[in-house]
Amino acid sequence: MKQFGLLAMMLVVGIWCYAQHGQGSPNSYVNPLVGTHKMGHTYPGATVPFGAVQLSPETDTLPYEVNGQYNKDVYRYCAGYQYADSTIVGFSHTHFSGTGHSDLGDILLMPTTGPLRLHPGTATRPSDGYRSPYRHSTEVAEPGYYRVLLDRYNIQAELTATTRVGVHRYRFPATDSARILLDLVYGIYNYPDKNVWSFVRVENDTLVTGYRQTNGWGRTRTVYFAMTFSRPIRSYGWQNESKKQVYRGFWRKWNQEQNFPEMAGTQLRGWFGFDMDTPGNVVVKVGISPVSTANALQNLYEEVPHNNFDRVREDARVQWLIQLSAINIDADEEVKKNFYTALYHTLINPTVYSDRDGQYRGLDQNIHTTKTANYTTFSLWDTYRALHPLFNIVCPERNGAMVQSMLHHYDQSVHHMLPIWSHYANENWCMIGYHAASVVADAVVKGTGGFDAQHALDACVATARHRSYEGLGYYMDMGYVPEDKSGASVSKTLEYAYDDWAIAQMARKLNRMDVYEEFARRAGNYRHVFDSSTGFMRPRLSNGAFRTPFNTLNTDEPGFIEGNSWNYSLYVPHEPEKMIALMGGNKRFTQHLDSLFTMQLPDSFFAHTEDVTREGIIGNYVHGNEPSHHVAYLYNHCGAPWKTQERVRMIMKKMYHPTPDGLSGNDDCGQMSAWYIFSALGFYPMAPGSDRYELGSPAVHRAVIRVGNIASEKFFTIIAENQSDKNVYVQKVMLNGKPLNRTWITHDEIMQGGELTFVMGSRPRR
Amino acid sequence: MKQFGLLAMMLVVGIWCYAQHGQGSPNSYVNPLVGTHKMGHTYPGATVPFGAVQLSPETDTLPYEVNGQYNKDVYRYCAGYQYADSTIVGFSHTHFSGTGHSDLGDILLMPTTGPLRLHPGTATRPSDGYRSPYRHSTEVAEPGYYRVLLDRYNIQAELTATTRVGVHRYRFPATDSARILLDLVYGIYNYPDKNVWSFVRVENDTLVTGYRQTNGWGRTRTVYFAMTFSRPIRSYGWQNESKKQVYRGFWRKWNQEQNFPEMAGTQLRGWFGFDMDTPGNVVVKVGISPVSTANALQNLYEEVPHNNFDRVREDARVQWLIQLSAINIDADEEVKKNFYTALYHTLINPTVYSDRDGQYRGLDQNIHTTKTANYTTFSLWDTYRALHPLFNIVCPERNGAMVQSMLHHYDQSVHHMLPIWSHYANENWCMIGYHAASVVADAVVKGTGGFDAQHALDACVATARHRSYEGLGYYMDMGYVPEDKSGASVSKTLEYAYDDWAIAQMARKLNRMDVYEEFARRAGNYRHVFDSSTGFMRPRLSNGAFRTPFNTLNTDEPGFIEGNSWNYSLYVPHEPEKMIALMGGNKRFTQHLDSLFTMQLPDSFFAHTEDVTREGIIGNYVHGNEPSHHVAYLYNHCGAPWKTQERVRMIMKKMYHPTPDGLSGNDDCGQMSAWYIFSALGFYPMAPGSDRYELGSPAVHRAVIRVGNIASEKFFTIIAENQSDKNVYVQKVMLNGKPLNRTWITHDEIMQGGELTFVMGSRPRR
Repeated sequence: MKQFGLLAMMLVVGIWCYAQHGQGSPNSYVNPLVGTHKMGHTYPGATVPFGAVQLSPETDTLPYEVNGQYNKDVYRYCAGYQYADSTIVGFSHTHFSGTGHSDLGDILLMPTTGPLRLHPGTATRPSDGYRSPYRHSTEVAEPGYYRVLLDRYNIQAELTATTRVGVHRYRFPATDSARILLDLVYGIYNYPDKNVWSFVRVENDTLVTGYRQTNGWGRTRTVYFAMTFSRPIRSYGWQNESKKQVYRGFWRKWNQEQNFPEMAGTQLRGWFGFDMDTPGNVVVKVGISPVSTANALQNLYEEVPHNNFDRVREDARVQWLIQLSAINIDADEEVKKNFYTALYHTLINPTVYSDRDGQYRGLDQNIHTTKTANYTTFSLWDTYRALHPLFNIVCPERNGAMVQSMLHHYDQSVHHMLPIWSHYANENWCMIGYHAASVVADAVVKGTGGFDAQHALDACVATARHRSYEGLGYYMDMGYVPEDKSGASVSKTLEYAYDDWAIAQMARKLNRMDVYEEFARRAGNYRHVFDSSTGFMRPRLSNGAFRTPFNTLNTDEPGFIEGNSWNYSLYVPHEPEKMIALMGGNKRFTQHLDSLFTMQLPDSFFAHTEDVTREGIIGNYVHGNEPSHHVAYLYNHCGAPWKTQERVRMIMKKMYHPTPDGLSGNDDCGQMSAWYIFSALGFYPMAPGSDRYELGSPAVHRAVIRVGNIASEKFFTIIAENQSDKNVYVQKVMLNGKPLNRTWITHDEIMQGGELTFVMGSRPRR
Repeated sequence: MKQFGLLAMMLVVGIWCYAQHGQGSPNSYVNPLVGTHKMGHTYPGATVPFGAVQLSPETDTLPYEVNGQYNKDVYRYCAGYQYADSTIVGFSHTHFSGTGHSDLGDILLMPTTGPLRLHPGTATRPSDGYRSPYRHSTEVAEPGYYRVLLDRYNIQAELTATTRVGVHRYRFPATDSARILLDLVYGIYNYPDKNVWSFVRVENDTLVTGYRQTNGWGRTRTVYFAMTFSRPIRSYGWQNESKKQVYRGFWRKWNQEQNFPEMAGTQLRGWFGFDMDTPGNVVVKVGISPVSTANALQNLYEEVPHNNFDRVREDARVQWLIQLSAINIDADEEVKKNFYTALYHTLINPTVYSDRDGQYRGLDQNIHTTKTANYTTFSLWDTYRALHPLFNIVCPERNGAMVQSMLHHYDQSVHHMLPIWSHYANENWCMIGYHAASVVADAVVKGTGGFDAQHALDACVATARHRSYEGLGYYMDMGYVPEDKSGASVSKTLEYAYDDWAIAQMARKLNRMDVYEEFARRAGNYRHVFDSSTGFMRPRLSNGAFRTPFNTLNTDEPGFIEGNSWNYSLYVPHEPEKMIALMGGNKRFTQHLDSLFTMQLPDSFFAHTEDVTREGIIGNYVHGNEPSHHVAYLYNHCGAPWKTQERVRMIMKKMYHPTPDGLSGNDDCGQMSAWYIFSALGFYPMAPGSDRYELGSPAVHRAVIRVGNIASEKFFTIIAENQSDKNVYVQKVMLNGKPLNRTWITHDEIMQGGELTFVMGSRPRR
C-alpha cells in the first residue's frame, strides 16, 4: 500500500501498544459476519482495506436459471455466503460487499481427502461432491482473517490477504489423499455459460498460473492468477467438462487428464495432490491481476515473499487497525460493534484495480499504467450519497485517486461518459443518474485533490449531455424525462436534477460560469414532475400530461425504480426549502413526513422489488434501499429538527445490529454502513456537492475523527453529553466552545479540527 | 520491415529500372492463383513477404460438422478460397498458405448495397444473404495485390497489404445504401462455437477497433484490430446472434442494434453505412495485432499513415520484387512461372508475429518484447525439409530470427519443448517428431546467426528428452517406439532418429561431445524397426516382436502416419549408405526404388488419407505429401545418379503447373514449393543439419542466386548447358571452372559465391 509511508509506520507503533490491550481495539469490535444472514450481502472472509483480493467462503452454487427462468434464490448469493447454509463449497478470491446484483467468485480452492470428487455436489447431498459441512462454532471472522473447520475432512481452513494476494492455510490430518481442488467453473451468479475461457499452467511443482475470463454481470472480465504451494505437488489432474476441444489433432492421444501441465477450456476443474504422512499445513498463496499471469506473479512475490501465514495475518490486522483508528469512539458496546463493523464495511469498496507496477486493464480493454493506485467497483447510485463524502473526511487522498480512476474510465469510454456502475474494465449500466458527477463535484467543492479538476468538470458535462443515455436528450429539451419515451422517468428526472446541481456547484468553484448557469438551470427540473393536484412527483408523458393511473405506494409503479412515489417525491436533496414550499410549506410537509414514517403498508407492496424488504422499512420509509437515505434529515428544513434527531436514532436502533442478520438491506458497497457512521457521529451529507452537513443526534458519547489523510495530525472531536437511548434530543450545540445556532456544520469546520459538543436530553427542544 | 535498410533501398533503385521493363520482372511470373483449385490450399489474396496480414477472398462458409459428423468438404477450405466456387463471401485478413489443417479467416469485410442482409447466405442461394457471384475474368491476382468485381453489387474490390495492415479499396456505384459489413462470426474451419469472444468499438466516425478470440485449431487465439475508413460512417448497426447477454441489467432498454458504439459477444455482425451520391471509393485500412487494439492502431498509423491505396500496392510490389530477385533465372516460360510462383509461396510463411514496438503474445499468454521481428506459423514437420534450408541461403538473417522465435516458444513453453506446429501463441501438437531441432541444427551447422547457439542446443536436447511426449520415453529406453504403446511408431522412430542425428551434428560443431555421443547413438535407432525378413521398416511391439499382420502399401497401416511403409521405409536421410546396405546393397536398392516409382496402386489406397491423393503420386511415390521429398535423391547414393536426374525432372514436370490446379498436394507452408526451387536449381538438402546438398538436374538454363542477406553482394551462378526437356542427364559438372567429381556440393561452396556448371545431355551418364 503506497499510502503507508514512514509517518504511518510511526503511527502504527503508537497504535501498537493500544492494540496489545486486546479487546478494546477497533478491530475487536468488527464482526465481518454482520450482514451475511438474509439480505446484507456481505461476505465474512479476509480482505485488507480496499484490497483487490476478497478471499471468502462460498456456501452454495445455485444456478442463475432454472428451466429457463431466473432463479430468485440466487439473489441471496451475491457475496457467495449465506449464514444459514450448512456446507462450504470452497474459498474464492473475489467478492462484492453488499451489492444487489453480482458477479465474481473467481478461482475457487477447496482442500479435500478421500476419493477424488471434482463436482461440488449439492447442499442436500454434499457427499455426492466435494463440499463439506461446517459449524459456526468453529468459525472465526476478524478483519483480515477467517477460519473454519471443514468437518467432513477434519481440515482447518484459514484465510488472510494482502492487497493483491489471498493466502490460505489448510491443516490436513495424516492421509494418503491430501488434495487441493482448483475449481475454475465455480462463480457467483452462474449465468448459463458464464465462463468464456480459462487457462491453467503448472509451471513447476509449487507454482500454477492461469486466468479465467467470464461473461457475467460484467460483460467480459478476466482475472489472471499465480498460485504457489508451500509443499511440492506430487501429482495433479484435470477434468474438462467443456464441449470445446482442447487440442484439435484428430489422431493425437496425449493424456490430458493426468500430470499434463497446460489446460484450457470453459469448464475446467483440477486437483493437486500432496504428501501428508503426518498431519501438516499447506500454505497456498494466490496473487491476482487484471493484466497478466506475469503481473499476478509479480504481485505475489512482492507482497508475500515468504510462506509465513501468521505474518500476513498480522500485517492485515495492523492495516485494519490503522484504518479503523481513523475514528475512535466512546459508546455503548452495541453501538461500538455496529460502528466499527460499519466502518469496516465502508473501507472495503471501491477496490484496488492495478498491479504493483501500476498496470491495469482499461475500459477500452488496453493495458494502461497509473502512478497512484487505480480503483474499480463503483456502485455510484449507492455510494455517492455518504460513502465518498466519508472518504473526503477520513481518506481524501484515496478518494482523489478514486475520482482519478473515474476519469480514467471517462478517458477510455467510447461513450465519453463517467462510470455508472463499473467494475473490472466493464460498464454494467446499472441503475440511473450520472452520480459520478456528484462524487467528483463533492471532491472539488471540498478541496480533495489528486486529479485535474477542469478535466473532471469537462467529464461531468460530457456525461450529463449524452443525449442518447436513458432519456437524457428529452430531459435536456423538455426539462423532464417523458415516461412514454424512457421508463423510470420520475426517478431519472429527480436524480438528474440533483446531479446537475452538483455539477453547477463544481463549475462555480472552478469559475466556469457558463457551465454553472446551464446546470443551475437544469437543477430546477424536479419541478417539472411535481403534480400539485396530488402533491407527489408523478410521471409525465411527452405531450405534457401526467400519466394516469397513478399509485403513490406501488414500488413497481411506472415512473419509478426501486422506490415508490412516496419515497422518491422527497428526492430534492439540493433544494429542500423549495421542495417543501412546493409541497405546501413546513407544517404540511412535516405532517407528510410523519405519515411516511408511521403508515401501514399491505404485504402486496413488497412482492416485486428485491431491494425493498419488510426488514428495511419503518412505516413506508425504506431504509433498506438508498433513495430515502437523506429523508430523516429533511425535518431540519421544515422547522422540526427534533424529529430528525428522533428518527435517525430510531433508524440506527432498528436497522443496525451487530449480528449476522444485523443489516436491514444490502450494504451496497458500504453506503448503508456510511449512513450509520455519519448518523452515529451526529451529522450527515444530505447533498454531496454542498459543503454542509445536517446535524442529527449522535449515538456515541465521544468520537475523535482523524481528519485528512492517514498521517494527519488534525482531529475533530465530537462530544455528546448526557447521550443515552432516551436522551436522543439535542438541547444545545457548541462548536469549539461557542454556541452553534444552526442545524448544520461545514466541511471546513470539520477539517480544521476542533470540538463539536452536543448536549443531549430526553425531550425535544422545539 | 526492419530488414530493409539503406542498402536495400539502393538495391531497389537498381532493380527499379529493370522492373519498369514490365513483363520480364520476377513478379510478372508469379500467379497467386496457383494451388487454389483442388488441394493446393493456397490463397489468391494480397500479402507482403512473411506478412502478418494475408488479405484474401473467401468463397464459402461450410460448417465443420454436419449432424454431429466431421464434414469432409471443409478440408478444401483451409485457405478460405476454392477456384471452382462462384460466389465470394467477403475478404478476411488472416490465412494459412497450403496447410492440411486450418484456422484463421479473421475480420471479414464485405461491401454491399441494397436491402441489409447480415447473414452470408449459401453458395446455391447467394441472394438469401450478402454474398456475391463473381467471375474469374474480372479477377486479378499479383504479388501484393488482388482485384475482383462483385457482380451482384457492381462493386470493384481491391486488396493490398503491408506487413501488419490490410488495405481494401471498394468502388461503389452511386447508391443510397452503400455499406461495408464486418462479419466477426465468419472464420475458416468453423468448429461449433469457434468464437470464444469478440468486442468492437466505434471510436469515432472513421475508426473502429476490436478483437476476436477463437477456439479453433489453435486452442485460443486473439486477433486485435483497428480499422479506418476513408469516408465518415453515417450510421451503423449490429446483429448479435449470441445467446450470451451483452448487458445484464434486467430492466435496461438501451437500443444496442443501431449506432451503439460498443458491442461484445460471440456471434457478432455489424455494418457501416456511407454517403454515396455519386460513384466513389471507400478505402478501408485494417491493422492487426496479437497484443491489443492500441498496438493494432499503432501498426496501422505507422505502416499506412495515408489513404493512398495505390501507394501501398506499389510498396507491396517493390517488396516482392526485392525478395523474388534473390534468384534470377533464365528458363523456359512454364518453368519461370512455376519457379517464381513457388518462390513466392516459399516467402509467405512463417509469418511476422510481433508489433511495430516489438511486443507479441507469448506461448505463456503473457506479452513479451523482442528486438527483431518474432515469427509464428511453424509447420515444422513440413518445412524443416527444404523451406528453412532455402532461407539459410537466401535470407539467413530472417531464418535466424525464426530460430530465435522458436527459442522464445521454448522459453515460454511449460512443456519445455521447441515448437511442433505452432501459431499465434498456440502449440497445436500436429504431426510427429521434433523437427524444430533439425531447423536449429541446420542453422547452426551452416553458420546462420541471430540466436544463442548453446541455448538452442539445450532447447533441442530438452525437447528430445521429453519422455512423456509421443512414445519418446520408450524410444529412449528401447531404441524404438513400440506400436502397442504409442501409435505411428515407425514414422516416429525414423523421424526421431533423423532429428537426433541433426542434434548430434550441432553438438559436434558446438564442441558438446557428451551430447554428440548421446544423440549420434540415438541417430542409429532406425535400425530397430527394420524387418530384414520383409526388407521394410515395420512396427514393433514392446515385447520386441514385429507386429502382425503387416501391409506395406496401406497408407492407414498401424505404425505409419501420412505414408505407407513403402515410402516411410526410405526415411533415413542422414545415413543413406547404411540404410541401403541394410536393404541389400546398391543393386537391390535401386530395383526397390524403381519399383516404387513404377508400381500400380489400386484405388482403395487413397480412401483414407486426406493428404495423399491421386494427383500427388507417381507409381507408389507420393510427392503430394512430405515424407518422400528426399527419395528421388537417394539414387545418388546407390550408384545411379542419372536416375535421380531423370526422376526429379519428371516430378517437376508432372507435379507443378502454372495453373490454379497446378499443385499436386497441399503446398504445406511453402515446403512443396521449396522442393521445386531447389530441384529446379539442380541441388537439394537431403538431410538438413548436413552441409551437403545432393546434385540433381537443373530445370533452368541459368540462375543467379544472391547468397546471404538482402544486401549481399555475393552471387552463386548455376549454368545448365544444353538443358532441355530431353536433355535431363548430367554429363559433367564444374565448380568455378574445375570438374566436380561428386554428386554433392557444400553450403560453403554456395555461400562463397561462384559458378556451378552442369553440362546436360539426353543420355544417362552411367
